[in-house]
Amino acid sequence: MEERVTGTSSTLAIDLGRTGCRAMLWRGDDAEPCATATGDGALGLTAPAGAIAAGNAILAVAAPLLAAQGLDSVDAVGVGAPGTLAAPDAARELAEHLCKSLPARSVALASDAVTSHAGALGGAPGVVLAAGTGAVVAAIGPDKQFHRIDGWGPWLGDEGSGAWLGLAGLRAAIRAHDGRGAATALREAAWQQFGGPGQLALQLGTDDNPARIAAAFVPAIAHAAKCGDGIAIALIHAAAEALARSVLAGAAAVRGVMPVPVAIVGGLTELGDMLLEPLHAALQRSGAPLRVCAARGTSLDGARHLAVHEGGIHEPCVMRAGTRADIARDGAGRPATQSR
Amino acid sequence: MEERVTGTSSTLAIDLGRTGCRAMLWRGDDAEPCATATGDGALGLTAPAGAIAAGNAILAVAAPLLAAQGLDSVDAVGVGAPGTLAAPDAARELAEHLCKSLPARSVALASDAVTSHAGALGGAPGVVLAAGTGAVVAAIGPDKQFHRIDGWGPWLGDEGSGAWLGLAGLRAAIRAHDGRGAATALREAAWQQFGGPGQLALQLGTDDNPARIAAAFVPAIAHAAKCGDGIAIALIHAAAEALARSVLAGAAAVRGVMPVPVAIVGGLTELGDMLLEPLHAALQRSGAPLRVCAARGTSLDGARHLAVHEGGIHEPCVMRAGTRADIARDGAGRPATQSR
Repeated sequence: MEERVTGTSSTLAIDLGRTGCRAMLWRGDDAEPCATATGDGALGLTAPAGAIAAGNAILAVAAPLLAAQGLDSVDAVGVGAPGTLAAPDAARELAEHLCKSLPARSVALASDAVTSHAGALGGAPGVVLAAGTGAVVAAIGPDKQFHRIDGWGPWLGDEGSGAWLGLAGLRAAIRAHDGRGAATALREAAWQQFGGPGQLALQLGTDDNPARIAAAFVPAIAHAAKCGDGIAIALIHAAAEALARSVLAGAAAVRGVMPVPVAIVGGLTELGDMLLEPLHAALQRSGAPLRVCAARGTSLDGARHLAVHEGGIHEPCVMRAGTRADIARDGAGRPATQSR
Repeated sequence: MEERVTGTSSTLAIDLGRTGCRAMLWRGDDAEPCATATGDGALGLTAPAGAIAAGNAILAVAAPLLAAQGLDSVDAVGVGAPGTLAAPDAARELAEHLCKSLPARSVALASDAVTSHAGALGGAPGVVLAAGTGAVVAAIGPDKQFHRIDGWGPWLGDEGSGAWLGLAGLRAAIRAHDGRGAATALREAAWQQFGGPGQLALQLGTDDNPARIAAAFVPAIAHAAKCGDGIAIALIHAAAEALARSVLAGAAAVRGVMPVPVAIVGGLTELGDMLLEPLHAALQRSGAPLRVCAARGTSLDGARHLAVHEGGIHEPCVMRAGTRADIARDGAGRPATQSR
């Protein structure tokens, strides 16, 4: 690595998930990234030795990306990682480790719900519903108070998520099989996908990630609904109602913005109108002052935003390491050297 | 062991569960057992090396019991063990192993749902609902056809069970916490028992047996219902409705008995009238020809019944090893040496 690039600031954004890790690198204020990379994920910061595992996963993706770009350091790094809010000590450890190892002038680390919010609303206050295998609502007002609604995982919540909808469909299939519930095309679809009720029960009972297995049944539910299966249609409506309740709880927690901007992101939105129409209808029916808007960006855009903007509404949820003189201060202008 | 008891037939009944193993020994036709013992359980016969683990768990309880009674062998052994129906090869291996190791003149092995049925209805046809942490209905008619309804575990079914009811209560608590659902006394009760929503989510996500953790919340739900909490009352009614649907599906599968005898057993019945009244009401409302009766015995009584009666309605579900000339043949009188 003889060549060194200087004179252009670089921003690296990382989205660390439990199954994968994505990275994007931008030069200066370019809209498009100059490089992207992906790799393995890591369990969240709440897991035992979570900071070390997260650091290894991030460095395995980020270090080769920087090297391939001829960079031996980076200006600003933004990271979204699960468990940041719940495990602040591990988060501090990770932020400082990345600052030293990449090396970086500054690192901003936040929960994936926070980077998702910052990306979808471009740093502005409002409510973001992220609905994929799980479901969580992040709500932040101008008072910088962060509210998380649901996101409690498949045993306790994630209501309306892919795992929730998939399980509801599989339970309907099993009910029809037992003669405890109405006939539904989901029964045949489930055995086609999983081999039979016994195999399905075994798979859910022994797999590391039953939520992912259940969510894999969502396309079959969507197909059955398209073909007019009443049970499938009712389950998608129920998911929409559950998601709407989470959005409304989030909107009720936001103070000082009227109407409250709402963005809906995540893989479950690929269901399209069959989910989004009843969801929008439920929001409208509530009479709450909302403005549903398209997402402006992804969680990687949000991580980039947090890396280069300090003091915004997300600041109380951001763990920072390192120092930058040139960081934008769009809030109270707290010293950039602060490490929380 | 110098002393040997002869001239009196002995029957050993075993109830192997995932958490514990119970054994009872009877002399001749005595109503009361002469000895009982308990020990550790084992995963079912569907688990890897399930037959070996089950055999070890049973021998650890049964061998000392026989020795303490001065017996170096036993006439008839009846065993109820989970997974017997699903894993016939492992069941045969276990039955033959027990026959040799105990040693026993004959061994009768059946699923715990089958021994439960035989105990509750004394070997007669009908429907037995076993509702504890899980929930399963066994239905058998004079045609010896065995029907299992639900019993699919906490991800897919066990609807109306302790785990199902407990999870429903914990979800209601989390909904109230998030502002997504109605206020309920279950919220305070849940945090008192589990420390808070974060600790609860962590416990359910990392424990080997989340169903047991959830079922442990049932007494708190019962208490809240007694104090008039509308959410708790509604959840117990929903459990009763779900259990009634399983019973009715079982009754519909039984041919040749009218009205169909129904017995309800298991730890969840300890909730008493608050569960049983809406359950009985739902059964009555259905108009199905049922006769709800008190259980005549436990699954240990059922295991004893299968050990000494061959050819009854449970016979197609029984795996037998060994040979007995003196076994009662109350059915087609198939040879007692048959090993299926």
